[in-house]
Amino acid sequence: MVEIQGNMPPDPQKAEAEKDAAVKKSLGKIKNKIIVMSGKGGVGKTSTSVNLAIALANAGHKVGIMDVDLHGPDVPRMLGLDGMPELNSNNKLNPIKYSENLSAISIESFTPGKDDAIIWRGPLKYAAIRQFIGDVDWGELDFLVIDSPPGTGDEPLTVAQIIADAKAVIVTTPQEVALADVRKSINFCKTVKMEIFGLIENMSGLSCPHCGEMIDLFGSGGGERTAKETGIRFLGSIPFDPHVVACGDSGACYQEAHAASAVTTAFITVAEAVAKAG
Amino acid sequence: MVEIQGNMPPDPQKAEAEKDAAVKKSLGKIKNKIIVMSGKGGVGKTSTSVNLAIALANAGHKVGIMDVDLHGPDVPRMLGLDGMPELNSNNKLNPIKYSENLSAISIESFTPGKDDAIIWRGPLKYAAIRQFIGDVDWGELDFLVIDSPPGTGDEPLTVAQIIADAKAVIVTTPQEVALADVRKSINFCKTVKMEIFGLIENMSGLSCPHCGEMIDLFGSGGGERTAKETGIRFLGSIPFDPHVVACGDSGACYQEAHAASAVTTAFITVAEAVAKAG
Repeated sequence: MVEIQGNMPPDPQKAEAEKDAAVKKSLGKIKNKIIVMSGKGGVGKTSTSVNLAIALANAGHKVGIMDVDLHGPDVPRMLGLDGMPELNSNNKLNPIKYSENLSAISIESFTPGKDDAIIWRGPLKYAAIRQFIGDVDWGELDFLVIDSPPGTGDEPLTVAQIIADAKAVIVTTPQEVALADVRKSINFCKTVKMEIFGLIENMSGLSCPHCGEMIDLFGSGGGERTAKETGIRFLGSIPFDPHVVACGDSGACYQEAHAASAVTTAFITVAEAVAKAG
Repeated sequence: MVEIQGNMPPDPQKAEAEKDAAVKKSLGKIKNKIIVMSGKGGVGKTSTSVNLAIALANAGHKVGIMDVDLHGPDVPRMLGLDGMPELNSNNKLNPIKYSENLSAISIESFTPGKDDAIIWRGPLKYAAIRQFIGDVDWGELDFLVIDSPPGTGDEPLTVAQIIADAKAVIVTTPQEVALADVRKSINFCKTVKMEIFGLIENMSGLSCPHCGEMIDLFGSGGGERTAKETGIRFLGSIPFDPHVVACGDSGACYQEAHAASAVTTAFITVAEAVAKAG
């Protein structure tokens, strides 16, 4: 078993440098590192991360998804993955294979009980997240999708510092209070000097399953407008579909179960935009 | 102007004790302190806080609402409040009057630009939040509704430590991934020894504005079931209504504009349950 916290090593400076080197090595053969972030929680950041990763893998790219959201590591549940990653001969963790082109790993595997809250102060989180990232053996990848904690606090800051060459994909919903938080995310990226890859608007409208009419749950178009105003790339809009929630809860693959849906089409389009810009 | 960060005082220990005393005094005449929290962001925590406070005030209680969500202080926008609170003769801040029975104050007034991300490490946040709480003169109140940052990290921990006798109202949406986070919130409360007042299920079903049929956006009933399983009080379900989003964005009072709606009725019922248990 890999220990998140070890005993204090004899030479702390050397140990720090070794950990930084481990992170660099783990991520060294990855062409594009994308941190999926949101200024606000509950905008569907994780389901967007998961579905973007699946759409990229379905398009033939080698993809990894890494869940570093300490407080809500939902990737394993959404992918229907259980069990622990295995240690390979280099004493590193092999990500769990989800499909031919997609592997996944979550910090959940290294936290206590599933229902336990993690109440750690910042510096301990930094150490845990860095250790986790450095312990995984990704090999060669076209895209690593990193599901990051929401907000603009300690945790996304930690991830941005550890993976310095990652680019941000910001997920938002269309309403004004969410967009205010997007502007905060954009300023966050500027402050930590992280390049912004683009913006995705999620939950933009729902087609009533009974009558087929469109319902603007959270308004619409606000994401595209904000992208334009702030000069960042707009990667597309994903409609709301209750089946995304149901599939996420049960760990079923939405894009397989609802291959002809508007949401699947939207994710394919977003993945094309990401691959083109990558 | 009140300074969030001052110079280092000559006697740090004395200064700490003075700050703790200021918090105690500020909150001393308040009968019920309710921290509205959620394991996950985006479940409508802030719109629930605001509408619960309004429903309690409309029922004749003296209510305050305090926004301590450093990373997404949305209360002022949702209440349509602008401007700065004024200093009174005791050198304390008077909360801004929203209606006869409701006053409000937000940490937003004391943070930099509205669109700037606050990238502070834990200890600085603790100092800022404590200073803010201690600087407000609430006077006598039946209920203080505290809109807390989402998750189970540094910030809700800070709020729980500063307001030790507050009780938690947990807001969730009905889907399983949200409920997993609720169980984390419950364990969080146990760990920090904060009494749980009850659970509210938000966004539980939407009546299609075109055909009137019910749509289960995020499933339904999961909140009540989780409350039952974990032995905590269930305070009620609030349906989804796109007008709540629109009113929150524009700062209009939803319960005034949609007085006969199912959501207004639900908030009145939840406020009654809160008042009865308070």
